[in-house]
Amino acid sequence: MNQLTARTCVACSLDARLATPEEINVFMQQLPNWVIVEEDKIKILQRVLTFNNFTEAMVFTQNVADLAEKESHHPAILTEWGKVTVCWWSHKIKGLHLNDFIMAAKTDQL
Amino acid sequence: MNQLTARTCVACSLDARLATPEEINVFMQQLPNWVIVEEDKIKILQRVLTFNNFTEAMVFTQNVADLAEKESHHPAILTEWGKVTVCWWSHKIKGLHLNDFIMAAKTDQL
Repeated sequence: MNQLTARTCVACSLDARLATPEEINVFMQQLPNWVIVEEDKIKILQRVLTFNNFTEAMVFTQNVADLAEKESHHPAILTEWGKVTVCWWSHKIKGLHLNDFIMAAKTDQL
Repeated sequence: MNQLTARTCVACSLDARLATPEEINVFMQQLPNWVIVEEDKIKILQRVLTFNNFTEAMVFTQNVADLAEKESHHPAILTEWGKVTVCWWSHKIKGLHLNDFIMAAKTDQL
């Protein structure tokens, strides 16, 4: 099954495999609203979403949080007036795992 | 009245006055858990709080958001697993206003 949104996160262990550059290229074709940024040499999937005010931004933040709890994989979410920045990466392996691309795709569905 | 928590935010206009270094020194004595960081030459009041998990972090984030709506002054809140970073500053005047110190003190009360 190729659709990221149809997949669910798998448990991520310390020796789990980082996504390969080839996999990243394929996954990113399904994630046109996301960019990959690097912080301290760790690749992070990031999307900025805009809203009409702070309350709408918080509603979205809560929806992402609910999704995160459901899948047991948690992002960093920066909530500001009219703006939410969502970052997915896998802390244990210090980079991008298949789980992160799945969560990004599911974030887009919210 | 000197207690920051007893005050309420005033409307902040484009020509509102930045807090002076002397005022900042006085206010910071009431805010031992906060630090002032600079981003793009803008002073920002920042506190990092830790929690037991993502859900507890989100509950706190929502409480800060509710406080922000009540006072009509909005922060940037970074929510992560077990950790929330709250940043107060006044966008309009690109720095710290009395309002920010009031909100920091009220954040401590949550």
